[in-house]
Amino acid sequence: MEQWKHVYTNALTPLIFIERSVAVFPEKIAVIHGPRRYTYREFGSRIYRLASSLTQHGLTKGDRVAFLCPNIPPMLEAHFGVLLAGGILVPINTRLAPREIEYILQHSGASFLFVDTELAPGVKDILGGLPDLRHIVNIADDPQFPPIEGLDYEAFLAEGSPDPIPVKVGDEFGDITINYTSGTTGLPKGVTFCHRGAYINSLGEVLESGMTPDSIYLWTLPMFHCNGWCFTWGVTALGATHLCLRKFEPATAWQLIQQERVTHFNGAPLVLVALVNDKSAPEKFDWPVTITTAGAPPSPTIIETVSKLGAKIIHVYGLTEVYGPFTVCAWQEEWKSLDYGEQGRLLARQGVGFAVGAPTRVVDENMNDVPRDGQTLGEVVMQGNMVMKGYWDDPEATEKAFRGGWFHSGDVAVMHPDGYVELRDRSKDIIISGGENISSIEVEQMVYKHPAVLECAVVGVPHEKWGETPCAYVTLKEGATATEHDIIQFCRENMSHFKVPGRIVFGPLPKTSTGKIQKFKLREVAWEGKEKRIQG
Amino acid sequence: MEQWKHVYTNALTPLIFIERSVAVFPEKIAVIHGPRRYTYREFGSRIYRLASSLTQHGLTKGDRVAFLCPNIPPMLEAHFGVLLAGGILVPINTRLAPREIEYILQHSGASFLFVDTELAPGVKDILGGLPDLRHIVNIADDPQFPPIEGLDYEAFLAEGSPDPIPVKVGDEFGDITINYTSGTTGLPKGVTFCHRGAYINSLGEVLESGMTPDSIYLWTLPMFHCNGWCFTWGVTALGATHLCLRKFEPATAWQLIQQERVTHFNGAPLVLVALVNDKSAPEKFDWPVTITTAGAPPSPTIIETVSKLGAKIIHVYGLTEVYGPFTVCAWQEEWKSLDYGEQGRLLARQGVGFAVGAPTRVVDENMNDVPRDGQTLGEVVMQGNMVMKGYWDDPEATEKAFRGGWFHSGDVAVMHPDGYVELRDRSKDIIISGGENISSIEVEQMVYKHPAVLECAVVGVPHEKWGETPCAYVTLKEGATATEHDIIQFCRENMSHFKVPGRIVFGPLPKTSTGKIQKFKLREVAWEGKEKRIQG
Repeated sequence: MEQWKHVYTNALTPLIFIERSVAVFPEKIAVIHGPRRYTYREFGSRIYRLASSLTQHGLTKGDRVAFLCPNIPPMLEAHFGVLLAGGILVPINTRLAPREIEYILQHSGASFLFVDTELAPGVKDILGGLPDLRHIVNIADDPQFPPIEGLDYEAFLAEGSPDPIPVKVGDEFGDITINYTSGTTGLPKGVTFCHRGAYINSLGEVLESGMTPDSIYLWTLPMFHCNGWCFTWGVTALGATHLCLRKFEPATAWQLIQQERVTHFNGAPLVLVALVNDKSAPEKFDWPVTITTAGAPPSPTIIETVSKLGAKIIHVYGLTEVYGPFTVCAWQEEWKSLDYGEQGRLLARQGVGFAVGAPTRVVDENMNDVPRDGQTLGEVVMQGNMVMKGYWDDPEATEKAFRGGWFHSGDVAVMHPDGYVELRDRSKDIIISGGENISSIEVEQMVYKHPAVLECAVVGVPHEKWGETPCAYVTLKEGATATEHDIIQFCRENMSHFKVPGRIVFGPLPKTSTGKIQKFKLREVAWEGKEKRIQG
Repeated sequence: MEQWKHVYTNALTPLIFIERSVAVFPEKIAVIHGPRRYTYREFGSRIYRLASSLTQHGLTKGDRVAFLCPNIPPMLEAHFGVLLAGGILVPINTRLAPREIEYILQHSGASFLFVDTELAPGVKDILGGLPDLRHIVNIADDPQFPPIEGLDYEAFLAEGSPDPIPVKVGDEFGDITINYTSGTTGLPKGVTFCHRGAYINSLGEVLESGMTPDSIYLWTLPMFHCNGWCFTWGVTALGATHLCLRKFEPATAWQLIQQERVTHFNGAPLVLVALVNDKSAPEKFDWPVTITTAGAPPSPTIIETVSKLGAKIIHVYGLTEVYGPFTVCAWQEEWKSLDYGEQGRLLARQGVGFAVGAPTRVVDENMNDVPRDGQTLGEVVMQGNMVMKGYWDDPEATEKAFRGGWFHSGDVAVMHPDGYVELRDRSKDIIISGGENISSIEVEQMVYKHPAVLECAVVGVPHEKWGETPCAYVTLKEGATATEHDIIQFCRENMSHFKVPGRIVFGPLPKTSTGKIQKFKLREVAWEGKEKRIQG
């Protein structure tokens, strides 16, 4: 019996977060960047100026506004200002090659490009061939880098009005950002988010990370990566403090963490590896610190190390297509009694959907759930409010990604008896050796246990007899030594022999800007001129 | 440029909370009630049994299911089971008179009544005159009370299936509960909630109270009151633990708080007054405790007392029509340096809308915002996802409540320069004495500062010369003494003389089941046979 239509509702949108924090915490520090500190009142004024100046410069509803800059205040301002003006934000990965950036600007049809002056020279030459692009705005965060032809960000803000702009979102499913996937294979795809999804994911992130208005959040995670896992909005929602970080370096990060008594930061496991192995790392935190990690399964070793440092580690998992983190390895009371190694093994799993609602399954090719045996491989699929609307201007790829009504992650995983998902590998990372499936992650986790190992990536390399065999690419800790034989022996003593790497290669690893190891590059070199024979 | 219709979303509903917590925390304790402990698996099974048995007993979508029982497990089960079966839950205030209960059952057209056997005799006689009512189910929580004619709750559950029922909510704006207002004047009105509002408010409550999956929540607050301020759903969302409390008594509450190391509980200020003045109160908590209070403005005195006990006090404000708490007196860093008294004064204000989005204004008769001067009186109005859909089967009252597109609370308040709302009085609680408006709350807060005072209520009583004058009804602390003269003198020394109560009356105060003092009853006695002359 539905008696009336409920009309007194409001659209769900992250834009209400800045409006509320400016109203409630006007004098509280919203953003710290080096010596600069913006209160929420100032942060809000800059956002309103950005929005109003964008409108003055001809932005109309649905126009795309690209930002190419590091973790600096303008990038936070963009997450509200662009949306308030009715634009769609296109954050660009700062480590992309000019050709890739050109593709993104072209494909999104961006009419504005805001670019940090350090990155501007790299894109100067491509700007001529972009008919949609009407305005270039230099962000001169570091004065040592000269601007290119175009406007200046601070002057652009000065032209706008600081008066609050009321939030008017007609459709909570309306587009707000396009995040292009890094596209290890093929062209980048434009993952499109809407107001409602961003609102829910933002609240989900801060709930799962246990943040409060008192939190100090350090931006170790790139903001261009899924809008900083929606923490750009989430931290603002609580009226907590953003601590910017133009460039991630362990020593700088540790200095800031201690100086500002940072309570929360996020990063890929390799970011944590770099941090805890840096000589400026403290022995133990004397205040509560929570580190949320994702982007790759953290090894039990790093989980153990971070825990011993006194920090709480929360392992989450997601992809750009699901607004960043989507599942969490929810802590179970009974794990307390286990030793760090065992805790690490359990916490290295990707876990369960967020409490705000994140339906997650592991399915076979026919969309049937795999058995909960911790062994049968399947694909992780997701659904609900925290999955993207689709790929920008690519209905075919969207349809393919959502076949069967669920978003297909491409990640291969098992479902454990306790309902926790554990990634095994992306399909292409599975090593098939003599007909046996080997999880490259499992081999990596073993190699990581060797005390001399800092970083490790395992890929399948050609093998006369077995088709392929695991090869471990390894970087050692500073001052530590280990031979190929040492590491192979260590693995042989601890795991099935067919899984043991046939070779260990020492040297630096190729990485993406978000700290993911680019296994495909290692594979390319190993397989050059050879055809991969799939057996079994 | 809207390119596609986003179809991969899910309805926002609190039903996903139980589904997720059963999946993630099957062996964790969900509900404690005396010696009974239900894990989330067991809690879930009981909910599924309830839902399936309701369907077996003929419940169809939209049917109303009334629950009349104290804070015991079946009441929590109802908040999920009834909704899962497609029914609409009607929680009934356990302190209502049979005639009022009859009205609610009749007006809601309830087809099921679940009644605690202690309360059953009180309603036995009214049941014959309710043509819609098809099933009576006895909840025999306390074996000393015999059942009335009808089914038995545990037998009812036994008939149902414990198999999980998938959440299928077609319309997130669909009705889920009807909470009848206590109706101090006129007939009770049926405040109707929907899935979406309950989902958002539940998350809002746990975020503002800083709850985590480790929290232990004590049910000092009646669950029949705005669905326990949505904590019935919110505590479940996190997989935290519900600690039931059949009857609120300070000694029992303190025993449970210490025995189970309760981390969170909620209550009206008078509940806190009763607790902290009880002889079994601890000197200081040695673990973190958060008390969320609402229902009336807490006096600075009680805020100070609770703070000294080591608990964090969060003052929130709302009404049944806005799903319970809607605003929070958000803590400001700079208040730390103030003394308890000053902190108490600031924290006694009703504050600002929740972070999840709760637009709140104080307006004059023409819907213009009052100046932010802390003086001009206006009415609190609210909007957004956390306001009710409307009053059940009462379009006229709904329209009136939402005139101008905002929900009219009927509460009189000022807006402070810092954007914090502070209630002065409900219109009828303003005392008009010799043409001057006196806030009864302001007088109460002064009386509360007297060290001998336990409870106090101030109303206007007839006065020959001034029309009316404040009269304070006071209960003293156990063992404390103070004369009428003492208290009047104390007030004269500390506030404007025209606001000082002309009389002090000692004795117990009439209260509602939720701990609100029923000022209207005091007024009724004082004004019996006299006509109230409104001056000025």
